Amino acid sequence: MWSLRRHLRDRNGIRYADAMATTAAVLSIGDELVLGQIGERNGQVIAAALLDLGIPVTEHRIVADDCDAIAAALRALAATNELLVATGGLGPTDDDLTREALAQALGGEAIVEDAGAREALERRFARRGIAMPALNLRQATRPESARTLPNSHGTAPGLSAMLNTTRVYCLPGPPNEMEPMLRAQVVPELAARSRAGAVRTLAIHTCGLAEAEVAERLGSLMGRSSNPLVGTTATAAIVSVRLRAWGSPATNGSFERVAEEVRGVLAPFVFGEGATTVAGSLGAQLSLTGSKLAIAESCTGGMVSELVTSVPGSSRWFAGGWVTYSNEMKLTQLGVDDATMSSEGAVSAAAARAMAEGAATRAGVRFGVSLTGIAGPEGGTPEKPVGTVWVGVFDRDKGHPAHARCFLLPGDRDGIRTRASRLALQWTRMEVAGVASTRLIWQTTPP
Amino acid sequence: MWSLRRHLRDRNGIRYADAMATTAAVLSIGDELVLGQIGERNGQVIAAALLDLGIPVTEHRIVADDCDAIAAALRALAATNELLVATGGLGPTDDDLTREALAQALGGEAIVEDAGAREALERRFARRGIAMPALNLRQATRPESARTLPNSHGTAPGLSAMLNTTRVYCLPGPPNEMEPMLRAQVVPELAARSRAGAVRTLAIHTCGLAEAEVAERLGSLMGRSSNPLVGTTATAAIVSVRLRAWGSPATNGSFERVAEEVRGVLAPFVFGEGATTVAGSLGAQLSLTGSKLAIAESCTGGMVSELVTSVPGSSRWFAGGWVTYSNEMKLTQLGVDDATMSSEGAVSAAAARAMAEGAATRAGVRFGVSLTGIAGPEGGTPEKPVGTVWVGVFDRDKGHPAHARCFLLPGDRDGIRTRASRLALQWTRMEVAGVASTRLIWQTTPP
Repeated sequence: MWSLRRHLRDRNGIRYADAMATTAAVLSIGDELVLGQIGERNGQVIAAALLDLGIPVTEHRIVADDCDAIAAALRALAATNELLVATGGLGPTDDDLTREALAQALGGEAIVEDAGAREALERRFARRGIAMPALNLRQATRPESARTLPNSHGTAPGLSAMLNTTRVYCLPGPPNEMEPMLRAQVVPELAARSRAGAVRTLAIHTCGLAEAEVAERLGSLMGRSSNPLVGTTATAAIVSVRLRAWGSPATNGSFERVAEEVRGVLAPFVFGEGATTVAGSLGAQLSLTGSKLAIAESCTGGMVSELVTSVPGSSRWFAGGWVTYSNEMKLTQLGVDDATMSSEGAVSAAAARAMAEGAATRAGVRFGVSLTGIAGPEGGTPEKPVGTVWVGVFDRDKGHPAHARCFLLPGDRDGIRTRASRLALQWTRMEVAGVASTRLIWQTTPP
Repeated sequence: MWSLRRHLRDRNGIRYADAMATTAAVLSIGDELVLGQIGERNGQVIAAALLDLGIPVTEHRIVADDCDAIAAALRALAATNELLVATGGLGPTDDDLTREALAQALGGEAIVEDAGAREALERRFARRGIAMPALNLRQATRPESARTLPNSHGTAPGLSAMLNTTRVYCLPGPPNEMEPMLRAQVVPELAARSRAGAVRTLAIHTCGLAEAEVAERLGSLMGRSSNPLVGTTATAAIVSVRLRAWGSPATNGSFERVAEEVRGVLAPFVFGEGATTVAGSLGAQLSLTGSKLAIAESCTGGMVSELVTSVPGSSRWFAGGWVTYSNEMKLTQLGVDDATMSSEGAVSAAAARAMAEGAATRAGVRFGVSLTGIAGPEGGTPEKPVGTVWVGVFDRDKGHPAHARCFLLPGDRDGIRTRASRLALQWTRMEVAGVASTRLIWQTTPP
């Protein structure tokens, strides 16, 4: 919307004649979204992808599966934005009304069958050896002036149309279908057309520092009138620093300089940039040193292994893991000493050390990492409250036993598990990289 | 919005003089939300709380920190709803503009200092032993006709005002301040006023059927003029059926009857209702039979164990698991036969059977479940394309070897892993419950 454009200009004291020529709106469609039965997650993904192209989203609306309401929102958002991305309502059932609403917004266009979309649907079902339910035929239709966007991850093709001078994309609602279509089809089309390009963004990710400490280290770099603008966002042990430059390409020199300053004051907590995860960064370090990792986890119950194996190609540096949820599994599968368990308990430095060593030794790899703790909601004691997690890291090439650190983590069960998993991966990454020992957030033992 | 109300009335052929007297809209305010830098989570919480009161949300908008845009959204949403809940923009800094926007929407009212709010702020800072920054004084102001709502969790008081005939609440943006104010102040006020209370909702979850097949089985139950209204939503192997009843409490008898019909036509694929997950439902079955589970996973890399251990109390029925990512781990840790691996490969019925048996035997429990497959993006072959996953289920009490099924799953790496994990848990649940064998979606082998 014009006002956001003005507002950003006022903040930064720069002219946006080119860079801000296009603004966008997002429309999410679904009874279950507007009634709060499930959370809306597509809007953020779309807005972030558009911002990377230099196109700010000015408004996001969520409406019900109601043909009139959808059509009204399409018209209203198209009146004030040059780009509109809608999601949802493209399924095969009677309450999927986006096709009809778009035809209505286009002035009452006819709905026609799309030969290509029908063929793709029939091929999709044939590959599986099942007959296409008659219901799915609805998904091969489109308003007359629209074109369909192929869906490689589901049965709902997307739609693209011009609503007066506004380009409208309608994408499927399920995130696993929406995202590939957004990235493979919508983003490249927009990038080819965009006159922006003068907007540069970068996210630098840290793990193990409090957000307030990141802000303190950044100091005047976070000034509200700086270009690039530097801000932080925090989620469960990860603080990301976001740089955003407005204006002409001439500002790009200072962009790189500011990025270097940010990296400098936050090292060694910086694990990556852009789409890099802690697990992916650890994997890159392991690949560099030609070594492999094994994982033994208790309270995180498989989450650390899951994060590691969500990195494509992780089989090159990850051997495998144990989820030793019961004490018996810790004894029989990892060789943790029965006496240790009785005297120190399963949540202890000794247990974490033995688990990390057992994992590396049994998998026959150089590095072992372990987690044992109390994720709650039950099981806490005054000495070991919910949130207590011991992490062990073992390097077979060093001639000494595994290191162990204790953390006292905030949050509910999922929050504790997520923080524990990320901190364990970050500490392991530091050990593999040979970074000097540094205390991490929520750590209660000396570094 | 009037159209949703009319639409629901048209759908159901019932008069809503009482039940539908009120509809609501939600407005979220913040640059970081609309630009996709952080996810918007308040809308769902507010919508769910209002639905519990019988007040459906018809629209949710997210706008930038822009006074004109906020004022325009307040006016537009108030014109079509009797209730409006806004969040965000109540902080102390220059980009917190909700107070000004509300004053503007109220026709240019003056902003005045609120003596009670100022006192509460000063007390709050005094308790901490710090002087109140001058900046925070802004938070003690309000449009002349509004009243403030005390904030027990932060410095931003809320606001309440009448915009023509629409009641407007403005709540702080941080969820840990918004939620207590919503539950302790807004909900009780609305409950005291509400004449509705006749809305009932229910979600019935299935796993293993295509959405179109669920719709076909439901048939006329999904009629757009039914009460309760029956709709479906699908995400990665799970299809949920949502029932929603409008009107007087008298319709509640038919609500239970329709729910029974839905359960009937979808059994045995129904695994639970409401907040129940597949893993939680499997856990309940295991608890019923007093037996325990062990998991051996390869391509899912810990995801199945993670889903299982995200259920509080899962240690009562889950012993532990192996993430045998390398072939060597399958041999050494689970006792899979070397000859089998060479002749059939790691992604095979024989490997899946041996892994499930090895897991149950080594953990000393009754049930073992295994997954081995190709999650991509690399590693596919013409015979075993990306998406091929073998699942094994072993029951030690039955006198025969493990069962194995092959699936060919769509999606990217994460989608394939998520579908494989859920289908494996659903199949195991069926085996534990003694449900007759049924083919699941994407299964390529006979049931």
